[in-house]
Amino acid sequence: MANALDASDRFVRVARSAKRISNLSPHDGRRRVIIEGATPEIDGGRYAVKRVTGETVRVEADIFADGHEVLTARLKYRRPGRGSWLETEMEPLGNDRWRGAFTVGEPGSMLYTIEAWVDPLRSWRRDLQKKVKAGLEVSSELLAGALLIREAAGRALDAGLMEVAGRYPELGTLVDFGRLVRRARALGIRIALDIAFQCSPDHPYVKSHPQWFRHRPDGSIQYAENPPKKYQDIYPLDFETQDWRALWQELRSVFEYWVQQGVTLFRVDNPHTKAFPFWEWCLGELKAKHPELIFLAEAFTRPRLLENLAKLGFTQSYNYFPWRNTKAELTAYFTELTQGKPREYLRANPWPNTPDILTQYLQHGGRAAFMVRLILATTLGAAYGIYGPAFELGIDQPREPGSEEYLDSEKYEIRAWDRKAPGNLRELIGRINRIRRENVALQSDAHLRFIAVNNEQLLAYSKGDERSGNLVVVVVNLDPHHTHQGWLTLPLEEFGLDPDRNFQMQELLTGAHFLWRGARNYVELDPRFVPAHIFRLRRHVRSERDFDYFL
Amino acid sequence: MANALDASDRFVRVARSAKRISNLSPHDGRRRVIIEGATPEIDGGRYAVKRVTGETVRVEADIFADGHEVLTARLKYRRPGRGSWLETEMEPLGNDRWRGAFTVGEPGSMLYTIEAWVDPLRSWRRDLQKKVKAGLEVSSELLAGALLIREAAGRALDAGLMEVAGRYPELGTLVDFGRLVRRARALGIRIALDIAFQCSPDHPYVKSHPQWFRHRPDGSIQYAENPPKKYQDIYPLDFETQDWRALWQELRSVFEYWVQQGVTLFRVDNPHTKAFPFWEWCLGELKAKHPELIFLAEAFTRPRLLENLAKLGFTQSYNYFPWRNTKAELTAYFTELTQGKPREYLRANPWPNTPDILTQYLQHGGRAAFMVRLILATTLGAAYGIYGPAFELGIDQPREPGSEEYLDSEKYEIRAWDRKAPGNLRELIGRINRIRRENVALQSDAHLRFIAVNNEQLLAYSKGDERSGNLVVVVVNLDPHHTHQGWLTLPLEEFGLDPDRNFQMQELLTGAHFLWRGARNYVELDPRFVPAHIFRLRRHVRSERDFDYFL
Repeated sequence: MANALDASDRFVRVARSAKRISNLSPHDGRRRVIIEGATPEIDGGRYAVKRVTGETVRVEADIFADGHEVLTARLKYRRPGRGSWLETEMEPLGNDRWRGAFTVGEPGSMLYTIEAWVDPLRSWRRDLQKKVKAGLEVSSELLAGALLIREAAGRALDAGLMEVAGRYPELGTLVDFGRLVRRARALGIRIALDIAFQCSPDHPYVKSHPQWFRHRPDGSIQYAENPPKKYQDIYPLDFETQDWRALWQELRSVFEYWVQQGVTLFRVDNPHTKAFPFWEWCLGELKAKHPELIFLAEAFTRPRLLENLAKLGFTQSYNYFPWRNTKAELTAYFTELTQGKPREYLRANPWPNTPDILTQYLQHGGRAAFMVRLILATTLGAAYGIYGPAFELGIDQPREPGSEEYLDSEKYEIRAWDRKAPGNLRELIGRINRIRRENVALQSDAHLRFIAVNNEQLLAYSKGDERSGNLVVVVVNLDPHHTHQGWLTLPLEEFGLDPDRNFQMQELLTGAHFLWRGARNYVELDPRFVPAHIFRLRRHVRSERDFDYFL
Repeated sequence: MANALDASDRFVRVARSAKRISNLSPHDGRRRVIIEGATPEIDGGRYAVKRVTGETVRVEADIFADGHEVLTARLKYRRPGRGSWLETEMEPLGNDRWRGAFTVGEPGSMLYTIEAWVDPLRSWRRDLQKKVKAGLEVSSELLAGALLIREAAGRALDAGLMEVAGRYPELGTLVDFGRLVRRARALGIRIALDIAFQCSPDHPYVKSHPQWFRHRPDGSIQYAENPPKKYQDIYPLDFETQDWRALWQELRSVFEYWVQQGVTLFRVDNPHTKAFPFWEWCLGELKAKHPELIFLAEAFTRPRLLENLAKLGFTQSYNYFPWRNTKAELTAYFTELTQGKPREYLRANPWPNTPDILTQYLQHGGRAAFMVRLILATTLGAAYGIYGPAFELGIDQPREPGSEEYLDSEKYEIRAWDRKAPGNLRELIGRINRIRRENVALQSDAHLRFIAVNNEQLLAYSKGDERSGNLVVVVVNLDPHHTHQGWLTLPLEEFGLDPDRNFQMQELLTGAHFLWRGARNYVELDPRFVPAHIFRLRRHVRSERDFDYFL
């Protein structure tokens, strides 16, 4: 069988080295770079890949770190046991994917490994260039009000609101806060605390622990960034400090302090700009002691970072929902979230707006747009959230055209709201919350199924199924300006429904009942009234009483 | 954001325990069960999956062992650090996939792990039942000839052919063998040795090392099986023996012995019926010392086992090619092999026939069928092989109707062949081997691309590309009985060809030249002549001289 050999007696076996140079093992909490999803890799490096002499091995991996600094990644390879590693620079392909390649020689075995680190010097150079380009943008961030409120947030870090409250009595005292928490709890509401780990320039830490702050190669302290935003009035903490252990302990004690004040829910500000090993350690420690704690990651950043924070222990995650508006976008995104890889570890918490985000869709769609986004968030997400008063009142004025910042933002001033102002959405929000409580299907992200409708402006989907006794079908008109009609094609078999028998759907927003038969059913939605239907299947095949409906 | 909490303040984090109960670490070479591809599992168990109180965790994994014994698999789960594991039986889903499930309770963390083992008692019971059903089949295997030749094979194990040769002079002496190896090497041919690790009942090992053999619960020695075949004249080795270290050493020494005789190529008989940890150790040891060695796994068995042997170190693998005959089957299978997961570790060696396999397609397709399968094997596979004389002469008589065994099989008798008999395929085989040598594209499995043809009996594909300077396009008529015509749609852009310029294709089997233009080109293949075209693109965009063709 000589010919069997032509191409194959020059085999080289290439395996990823067991020695992972960069990982999250907390031996050194300063390691910030994460390397995942390396290819080629068989069963996590358990086995070698095969190549033939002269062939190229293209190695790719997701390589990223917290923050926005520049990374350097090297692909290293060698013969097992033979001398030092050969190296080649890896190139970023975008979306945190990197690639490097080497060519294999003699038959035998080879090892490869990936080494990556944050490159402060490169980061600094890049920032210098950016500053030149973006000088205006930088200064425009320096609103007087920002200084005030951020300083308050900064000092809040220094466990105990007392001092801050002393300087800002309008924020109330710790006693007031405790009363608020208890009162809310009595009403079945939990107060969430916004934790922002960063300091104002005059924060006590700056003097007491200067080593906790990030210094540029030129010695100056580096201010916070969350591109494109730059916060020159904020000093970020340096998670690469020699003194990282003390820093970690101190930060954990901040959570512990607020847990003692009755807080069980934390909305963590920009966690992707703090070291990932810290989060894994800190959240793990806190949950072991207080399993009921919930941590919501406010990481509006690149996909790999957003996903990794969920893996590391954040209970829920902000996500890209605010910018998914079309039928195609929403279908693709929620299919990925509920059926793709993330379903196992990422619990998406969709917010139509936040104190930082007033989307274009809300700015231009009027009251109907708010209803559409509210109904999408509450029925697509097992959990959801809104930035309350501004959303209830349909506030849609941006700071300036094209901006997603609110005009007269509460971030920079304390505002009083007339919660009963005409056009408010309180009644609708209340009704939807009742609907969510009465329909377990809406309390789970499992069994989300999109349903065909022959109109690009109509989005339809179901949650739950007939077996569980709770099947909800939602149809939303995504166009806030015009009425749309279309035909649904229901997957009757998957629903467990008989195509030849009537079944009754109750519309939960209006209470109206519809008698349907077969897969194809007509819907029409006028956004000036309510831009959506939330149907609940009333007939359960297993239950006798339901046959009443057919008498 | 109270509503954000409805579904989410009952989180349970579930991680796969780092403690892998069954693995291939050679601490205990007797561990035979392999557990792979467990789900849910994030980054190889690095992170936990999230569930809500009351939700079910469905755990699946590929679980298998060498051989055909019955496995038992258990899913075990517990709170970290809290007491003993809870257990639930896992159920086989088919294709070596297993499933188990448990429901999560209190918020916090949970661990799960999978435990699986070979269950001799269950295996024995099953075999007893089968024997009742298949009594006839068993005895039909007991051909007198089989005993003779298998005994020879068995004794060959006992390093040194001398004794065997003594009893079977017609097999030649070790000196003859050495001469054969050297002469072949001088002609650029390598002799492959068939290694079958098993013994005849009177093999010396049976007396000298009785502990190396598998005993049934009733004390009798268990004979070899490769369902549906049973070999009552063969004693398999027991890789679960207490004495496994000595057994491993002895078997490795058998390879070493033949390497000293000049053999560098081993066709390993039924490796899937020997312990996987042994192969990983043995092949690793041998390759470290002799990187040039090639091991071909003759594992016609279930996909997971076939794949795993490739991962463990076998250089090439027999595969399901002999039973992939239709356009759909061949396209799907070779797409998986060259673009799916296996591409990184499994080098498929397609054989149209073997000493054990005479397919139905060859039995009923006449000479054209042999040409079709030869051309498919040689152009789809970077490596290929044939069971020579029987294939060259188009031998197509089965032992009995419906059987895939040869009539008068060389396995049971020594046959003399007239290699020049009319209708032999020697000339075609020689020409194709030349074509393979002259076209590097055919020596690689990379860049295999299937091409659209509007006829279900015509299969078209290309190898290589224009950039590499060697592009081969193959069109095969899969119907050995009738002429078929059709239109190819060539992916000109991917080929790097200008749609508005002529390009010349040379047909390598006939030497004919075709001048083509554009994507759609006509082909017609008469199986009575040659059932395939092997085209080579003659015009290279980069080369001046090729413009001659257009003068």
